[in-house]
Amino acid sequence: MEPKTYAEAGVDIHKADAFVARLKHSARRDGHKRLWPAAGGYASVYPVAGNLAVALTTDGVGTKLLLGLEQKKLDTIGIDLVAMCVNDLLCVGATPATFLDYYATGKLDEQLSDDLVAGIIEGCDQSGMLLVGGETAELPDLYQHGHFDLAGFAMGTVSREALITGENLKPGDKIIGVASSGVHSNGFSLARKLIAQDHPLRQTLLTPTAIYAQPVVRLLNEYPGAIKGAAHITGGGWTNITRPNKSLGYVIENHLPVPEVMKLMSETVATEEMYKTFNMGMGFCIMTDAAHVDKVIATFQASQFNAMVVGEIFDKKPALKIRGVSQKEIVFATSAK
Amino acid sequence: MEPKTYAEAGVDIHKADAFVARLKHSARRDGHKRLWPAAGGYASVYPVAGNLAVALTTDGVGTKLLLGLEQKKLDTIGIDLVAMCVNDLLCVGATPATFLDYYATGKLDEQLSDDLVAGIIEGCDQSGMLLVGGETAELPDLYQHGHFDLAGFAMGTVSREALITGENLKPGDKIIGVASSGVHSNGFSLARKLIAQDHPLRQTLLTPTAIYAQPVVRLLNEYPGAIKGAAHITGGGWTNITRPNKSLGYVIENHLPVPEVMKLMSETVATEEMYKTFNMGMGFCIMTDAAHVDKVIATFQASQFNAMVVGEIFDKKPALKIRGVSQKEIVFATSAK
Repeated sequence: MEPKTYAEAGVDIHKADAFVARLKHSARRDGHKRLWPAAGGYASVYPVAGNLAVALTTDGVGTKLLLGLEQKKLDTIGIDLVAMCVNDLLCVGATPATFLDYYATGKLDEQLSDDLVAGIIEGCDQSGMLLVGGETAELPDLYQHGHFDLAGFAMGTVSREALITGENLKPGDKIIGVASSGVHSNGFSLARKLIAQDHPLRQTLLTPTAIYAQPVVRLLNEYPGAIKGAAHITGGGWTNITRPNKSLGYVIENHLPVPEVMKLMSETVATEEMYKTFNMGMGFCIMTDAAHVDKVIATFQASQFNAMVVGEIFDKKPALKIRGVSQKEIVFATSAK
Repeated sequence: MEPKTYAEAGVDIHKADAFVARLKHSARRDGHKRLWPAAGGYASVYPVAGNLAVALTTDGVGTKLLLGLEQKKLDTIGIDLVAMCVNDLLCVGATPATFLDYYATGKLDEQLSDDLVAGIIEGCDQSGMLLVGGETAELPDLYQHGHFDLAGFAMGTVSREALITGENLKPGDKIIGVASSGVHSNGFSLARKLIAQDHPLRQTLLTPTAIYAQPVVRLLNEYPGAIKGAAHITGGGWTNITRPNKSLGYVIENHLPVPEVMKLMSETVATEEMYKTFNMGMGFCIMTDAAHVDKVIATFQASQFNAMVVGEIFDKKPALKIRGVSQKEIVFATSAK
C-alpha cells in the first residue's frame, strides 16, 4: 500500500519532538541560561567573549542518501549535508565559519568517500565555510553492506547586534519567500515511496539543497537589523514559518512555483500533509519591515534566487494560515518545533 | 576463525588514514592557514576574536554500541560519546564548553533514547560542558531494526597562550601516564570477537571511557604552560603518544596496570598489535618538564586518577619505543595519525 502521510512512511515527527523536549528538560537548566536566546531555536548560540558568540548546529541528510545509492550519484549528497546545517545557522543571524563531518560505514569505499567529500567541500565553498575536520568510522557489523550515514556539524559566529531574536517582529512585517531547488533533504522516506523507481522525476529528487548563505550574509553585513526573522523550511515543512516568534500569526497568500515532483505527490497526498512535510517550492523565508522588502528581494536575485513577498505577519492566532492552495485556507495551530 | 589483528576484524585503519589525507589535500588550502596549528591534530582550532579561538572535534563510539545493545545496557554509551570528543579537545589545551549529538535510528525507542541522553548529560557534567543541541533522525530503511548510530560534536575555547602546540617539547621532558578505565571506545570490532559472549569479562568492556577534563582544566588554569604536550590514547593505541611533536622520540619504560580484559586478549593477539589497537591501561598522557611532574601527578590523583611518570622524550628517532612489555623493545616508526 502506498503511504499517504509521513507517519505511514515510518517517520513519527511527534515522537521525535517529545524526545527533544525531554532532552531539554533533562539538561542542566542553570547552565543553559548562558546561551543567548535566538529566533526559532535553529541553532544554539553560546557567548565566547563579550559581544561575540558562536552558533552551533548539527544535522544529517536522512534517507536522501539511500536515493543517492540507488541512483549511483553521491557527489552532491555532501552539499545537502552542509546545506541542512548552514541554512539553520543563517536563521539566527550567524555568519558560517567551520564545518565538520561524521561519516560512518561498514566498509570504506574510496570512490564513495571521494564523492561525498567532494560534495561537502562544494557545500562549504558555497557557504563561505572551512571544512576543518571530521571522523571517518569503519563499523563492520553495524552498517549493512554498502550502507553508510553522514552527520554534519556547523559553527558560525554572531555578534550580539546581529543576533536574530524574533522579538522585533511585528504585525505588518512582510514575509519574503525564497525559492527552493527542489525537495531539498526532507520528506524522503515518503517521496522515495511515492515516486516510482522508473519515473523520470525520480532523479530530480537528488537535486542538491539550496544554500542561502551568500545572500543572507550579504544582508547581515549591508543592512544590519533588516532581517527580523528567518525560517529554513526543513523537517515540518511550512510549520517552520512560525518558529521565529510563536506569539504572532503568519499568513501566506502568494506562492512561488511548486516543483513538478511535489505536484505529482500531491495527487495522492492531502494538501495539508504536503505543506507540513515538504517545502513546496519555498526553501527559506526572511521576515522584514516594508522599508527593506526591495533590498532583500534584490539581494537574493543578485545571487540567482527567485524571491518575492509571499505574505505578512499578523497579530491573531492561529499561527499560520495558507491561502490559495486549496478551496479552504489551511490553518496550522503551531509549529512542529 | 578468530581474528588476530584489527584488520582481520574488518577495520582498515590505513585506508581510513588515506581518506583523511585526501580530505586535507582537497580542502581549500588558503582558508586553512587561518587555523591555529595545535599539537597532534586532535582538534581544529579556529580563531574567533584576537586572542581567542574555539577548538572543534567530532567522534563516535564505534561498535561499542553494538555491545551495549547485546548487554542491554545503553545508559553509559553517552558518556563514551562525550569522552571520545572531549579528551581530544583537552589535547590542544581547550576548556570544554558545548556538546551536540547526532542520533540516528530506524525507529525511535523512547527508553533507549532516554538511556542514551542520560549518559550524554552525565558525560557533559563530568566535562563541564553544556549539551546545547542535537539531531534525532528517524531513518526507516537505513538502520536495521534496533540499530542506531551516534555522533558527537564538542566545542571548547582556548586562548593563544593556553594553546598546546607541542613546539615547546624537548628531550628530557617527562611523559606522565594517566590510567584508563578499561578498553574505552576503541578496538571493539576486535574485542567483541575475542572475548566470548559468555565470558565474565565481556560486560567489563562496557565500562565508560574515562573523562580527563576536570584535572586537565585545573592544570591549564593553575599551571599555565605546564602541559607541553598531551595525547589521548584513542584509535591507533599508543602510536598516539607521538602525535604532539613528530620530530621527537618517545620512550615508555614504566607501566600502569594493564586491565584483565586486555591481558586475556594478549593471549591470542601479538603484543605489538595490542599496543597499536588498545590503550593498555593508559588512557591519556601529559608531557611536561621535570619541574611540573609532581604537580601534574598530584592534580590527577586529586581527581581519583592513577597517574605516574611512564617515560621520557628523547631526540632520536624512531618515534616510539616501548620497553618492558616483551622480550625485545617494541618500536613504532610513526603514529597512525
